[in-house]
Amino acid sequence: MYIFTEQELKQHISLNLDALSVVEEGFSYLAEDKVTMPPIMRVDVHDHNGEVDVKTAYVEGKDMFAIKVSSGFFNNYQIGLPSGSGLMMLISAKTGVPQAILLDNGYLTDIRTAAAGAIAAKYLSREKIQTVGVIGSGSQARYQVKALRLVRDFQEVLVYGRSVERATAYAEEMSAELGIEVKAVESAEAVVRNSDLVITTTPAKEPVIKAEWLHPGIHITAMGSDAEHKQELEAEVLAQAGRLVCDTIAQCERLGELHHAYDRGLLSREQPIVELGELTSQKTVGRQDEEQITICDLTGTGVQDTAIALFAFQEMLKRGLGLEIENKEAALKN
Amino acid sequence: MYIFTEQELKQHISLNLDALSVVEEGFSYLAEDKVTMPPIMRVDVHDHNGEVDVKTAYVEGKDMFAIKVSSGFFNNYQIGLPSGSGLMMLISAKTGVPQAILLDNGYLTDIRTAAAGAIAAKYLSREKIQTVGVIGSGSQARYQVKALRLVRDFQEVLVYGRSVERATAYAEEMSAELGIEVKAVESAEAVVRNSDLVITTTPAKEPVIKAEWLHPGIHITAMGSDAEHKQELEAEVLAQAGRLVCDTIAQCERLGELHHAYDRGLLSREQPIVELGELTSQKTVGRQDEEQITICDLTGTGVQDTAIALFAFQEMLKRGLGLEIENKEAALKN
Repeated sequence: MYIFTEQELKQHISLNLDALSVVEEGFSYLAEDKVTMPPIMRVDVHDHNGEVDVKTAYVEGKDMFAIKVSSGFFNNYQIGLPSGSGLMMLISAKTGVPQAILLDNGYLTDIRTAAAGAIAAKYLSREKIQTVGVIGSGSQARYQVKALRLVRDFQEVLVYGRSVERATAYAEEMSAELGIEVKAVESAEAVVRNSDLVITTTPAKEPVIKAEWLHPGIHITAMGSDAEHKQELEAEVLAQAGRLVCDTIAQCERLGELHHAYDRGLLSREQPIVELGELTSQKTVGRQDEEQITICDLTGTGVQDTAIALFAFQEMLKRGLGLEIENKEAALKN
Repeated sequence: MYIFTEQELKQHISLNLDALSVVEEGFSYLAEDKVTMPPIMRVDVHDHNGEVDVKTAYVEGKDMFAIKVSSGFFNNYQIGLPSGSGLMMLISAKTGVPQAILLDNGYLTDIRTAAAGAIAAKYLSREKIQTVGVIGSGSQARYQVKALRLVRDFQEVLVYGRSVERATAYAEEMSAELGIEVKAVESAEAVVRNSDLVITTTPAKEPVIKAEWLHPGIHITAMGSDAEHKQELEAEVLAQAGRLVCDTIAQCERLGELHHAYDRGLLSREQPIVELGELTSQKTVGRQDEEQITICDLTGTGVQDTAIALFAFQEMLKRGLGLEIENKEAALKN
């Protein structure tokens, strides 16, 4: 049994093309029906404005699979803590015995979530883009744009966040990091109207993007909504999509943007909706023409967790890292 | 963040009245509506004849709650491993940050499961019993009888298992441990006909107890069935119960004996079924007369896991045990 701390994981596991590639492969396994992925388990801790999600997925033929515990406690800022934390564990798919615990406090989730955004962009956004828009200015707003650089060149980032201070800090920090212009703008509308590709990274419970702001050729990835009560896109936005993609339809129709569009009767259940894995596995194409409006609804899947946890575990072992704990009774017990 | 190994947990946490009492309290919280307990998450790993369950429960007002991962891999015996393993973790209910990992490989599950059996017996079996019957000869067959000694005196144990060898080994071992007569008998029928209290601890997919074997005053606790396809009691057994108790009705009607009785149409949904927490919290009584046949259907609940994990954590900290791991970034991350 190995234990890896957040510090070592952050030092050695990066948001790079390898990480992207394992997450992409994970989506393909989904499309190839090689994945057993039960519905997300959620515990609400209303007393403390918190929730804990458990996700998992077993991929046929893999030696191990991950169980991921991620929490969001939204009063944590009052005591100077981030809202998100959690860990991943790897379980042997052959014996069920726990093999490793990755005390990542959400870092690997950040990586695999950003990777999914980049994968969506790779298949759905125009090849040539100039301006990327981001709504939200938290850690995913950073990771998403960094991941995007792995698949697209762009010259400018526009950011909008409810807190001007945080959006300005984002612009300064990301401008220095990416070496391109990053501007905080005054509205979500300004972001959408002026960007080729928009990523929403908010915990919004009311839509932050209106359909009337869209323009031909735009791609939007909405990664914020992962619960029944969350919503970033007006339902009409989805109705305008020429290509509508979900990480998994089952999750999006329960927890994502899709859910609200169905509720409003703006999409029929017969309308073609594609899963991201169908793009990564080449079963179908993403963007079909330059003018198409494309939307990707991401709720976060267990198969991404298994992919990134396996990747991190292998990378850490290669480097001889991790604390090994003897827990031998497992082999001796009757 | 603390890590506790199976070895230290086994050394310091025992199946005693304190453990019983915290589990009993857990059931009472359920009856008092103080528990948030989502449905069990299950991953089936068909390639390797395995399954992993995740259980959790948050109890209002408690500082932490457990998430428990337990696996059953039924080919493990081929390589000399026990089928069950797993771990529990404790999550802060105030911040969502993981606080401890208990690498118990199923030991704490054994304790809290046996505790539930003893609690059922405490409220449901006759006060004076002579003979206890056990069907199954694995580790729960041992723990259940040991737990029972905390709440009832008895002079004899009858055991039946499909493997004569294992049943004989059970009889020898338990006889030495309990200092009373423990006899392996030739059939489940012999167990049921001659015992005041019977515990079934099997992974049976076909009933192991027939209704025609029951006699007035018997109490049966069925703890084996925890999945749709498992069944230990003929549905008619439940129909004969004067008092029918479930750990939770919601789980038992999906995963326990209750499920099969409903399927067969032998119980109506209007029939009074009591939850164990209603007994522990004194909302209602258990056994109502000496002649009543009483049945308790246990599927295993997350609230038991939270109760035992909190108890173990406190006991271990009192003794200054556990490996403390620094994972400080949690406090610094944006």
